[in-house]
Amino acid sequence: MSLDPIRFRWRIRVYWEDTDAGGVVFYANYLKFFERGRTEWLRASGISQSALREETGAVFVVTDTSVQYRLPARLDDVVEVTVVVAEASKARLTIDQTATRISADGQGNESATPLCHGRITIACVDADTFRPRRIPSDILEKLLTP
Amino acid sequence: MSLDPIRFRWRIRVYWEDTDAGGVVFYANYLKFFERGRTEWLRASGISQSALREETGAVFVVTDTSVQYRLPARLDDVVEVTVVVAEASKARLTIDQTATRISADGQGNESATPLCHGRITIACVDADTFRPRRIPSDILEKLLTP
Amino acid sequence: MSLDPIRFRWRIRVYWEDTDAGGVVFYANYLKFFERGRTEWLRASGISQSALREETGAVFVVTDTSVQYRLPARLDDVVEVTVVVAEASKARLTIDQTATRISADGQGNESATPLCHGRITIACVDADTFRPRRIPSDILEKLLTP
Amino acid sequence: MSLDPIRFRWRIRVYWEDTDAGGVVFYANYLKFFERGRTEWLRASGISQSALREETGAVFVVTDTSVQYRLPARLDDVVEVTVVVAEASKARLTIDQTATRISADGQGNESATPLCHGRITIACVDADTFRPRRIPSDILEKLLTP
Repeated sequence: MSLDPIRFRWRIRVYWEDTDAGGVVFYANYLKFFERGRTEWLRASGISQSALREETGAVFVVTDTSVQYRLPARLDDVVEVTVVVAEASKARLTIDQTATRISADGQGNESATPLCHGRITIACVDADTFRPRRIPSDILEKLLTP
Repeated sequence: MSLDPIRFRWRIRVYWEDTDAGGVVFYANYLKFFERGRTEWLRASGISQSALREETGAVFVVTDTSVQYRLPARLDDVVEVTVVVAEASKARLTIDQTATRISADGQGNESATPLCHGRITIACVDADTFRPRRIPSDILEKLLTP
Repeated sequence: MSLDPIRFRWRIRVYWEDTDAGGVVFYANYLKFFERGRTEWLRASGISQSALREETGAVFVVTDTSVQYRLPARLDDVVEVTVVVAEASKARLTIDQTATRISADGQGNESATPLCHGRITIACVDADTFRPRRIPSDILEKLLTP
Repeated sequence: MSLDPIRFRWRIRVYWEDTDAGGVVFYANYLKFFERGRTEWLRASGISQSALREETGAVFVVTDTSVQYRLPARLDDVVEVTVVVAEASKARLTIDQTATRISADGQGNESATPLCHGRITIACVDADTFRPRRIPSDILEKLLTP
């Protein structure tokens, strides 16, 4: 299945709750940031996860995560998360994601500093049994259409 | 010191990370939502907490929280947090906050369902020693000016 | 100090995940610490919340929290949480809780530093509808028997 | 089962705070569980991270995480985390970790169900600049000695 580079961007503000005593964003929280990006990408594609569960009994679960951390984000930073479908099958999607700090110079210009990169695999499962099932075809179509 | 009803509103989306196995937002997370509201209120008032710390060595810390939970929020809900200064002294502020679910009917109309109410006291302290200190007067003025 | 007949103690270690960029435990996390204390107190009283839900459809939810923060805990600290039933009715319990830092001097002696105090009200509700219901009488008896 | 000379085990109880609306432990929280295991392994090896930072200005940071999720943990579960050093250099350690559900049959027997596996790389950096530095040799020796 060939995939167009469908790219989605979502901006997140760093709050106290996201940081740790090292003075930076706690590394596990980038998984949350990536998920917010994926959730908003689904929403922008017309997919509500809560409606999906109510109507079909299907939920997406995360089955694999891989993250490389290069630079830390700090309190008050704006972090932009991207979403690109790297691989798709009938039951799972592998998503490439990046987190980038966006800095404004006060004159309308922005600069971007890459912070970390992740590869997240999500699978469609039955909400009750957690058994794998096919991604509903209309959902898959929405996700893979640019 | 008389206080005008300075009210600030901030909308938050509920993600998986915010929920618990009861199917609703984990109650401790409303403290995070309230804090995001206060942080954005500070920012809208021209105050960056990270700049405040770097320039003056002062930080705001939470000294008292009181929250009454009435109805739960769920995945995908939009929650609006409000900020009203209830009391102000030279070293601390007491803030009344509410969290309200905002539902759209798809025809441009919104309805609001109150979820919980909180009263949060924040104090100005030295970032290193945590000893109380006065809120810098220009900061206090910004916060209490409508 | 008067004797509390129904006092329970539970020790917690502070990890990176619990801290924020202020270098101390993020204040909202004391609600998690208090809940761990209550959960272990229930367990020590012979009550499993997951079994309670499966067998009776009842869950305890938090309806009111009030916390006063006096001193912060830091990475690697040992924090002892206490549980005392302050009030009990047929459908709710109000619990007084404290968090205290325990320091060892390396010679077998411990000193205790009070950090914060909370008052938490929990109510029994139906797991699906969140409607109030009576605490099952055998559960209530277990909780109120020293 | 082959013997791992440097294996450490740490048990964790699953609380409400760890779960999400899927009814299971939120996947990002296994990174927290793994870290609790590493922290207790360091402590059992005679290493306090807060003392390390105060005395040498060095902290360990996570630079890479990879986790495969196979089965979920639920409220009240006991999860055992293991720690095995897979690779070591002068500035970083790669740690293999597993999370396993431990079930007791009430007759003194336990069964173990593998839940997920992770590989975490930690690097020694300067606490202020986040620049890489060598792991202090006495620390490295403690960690690599069975």
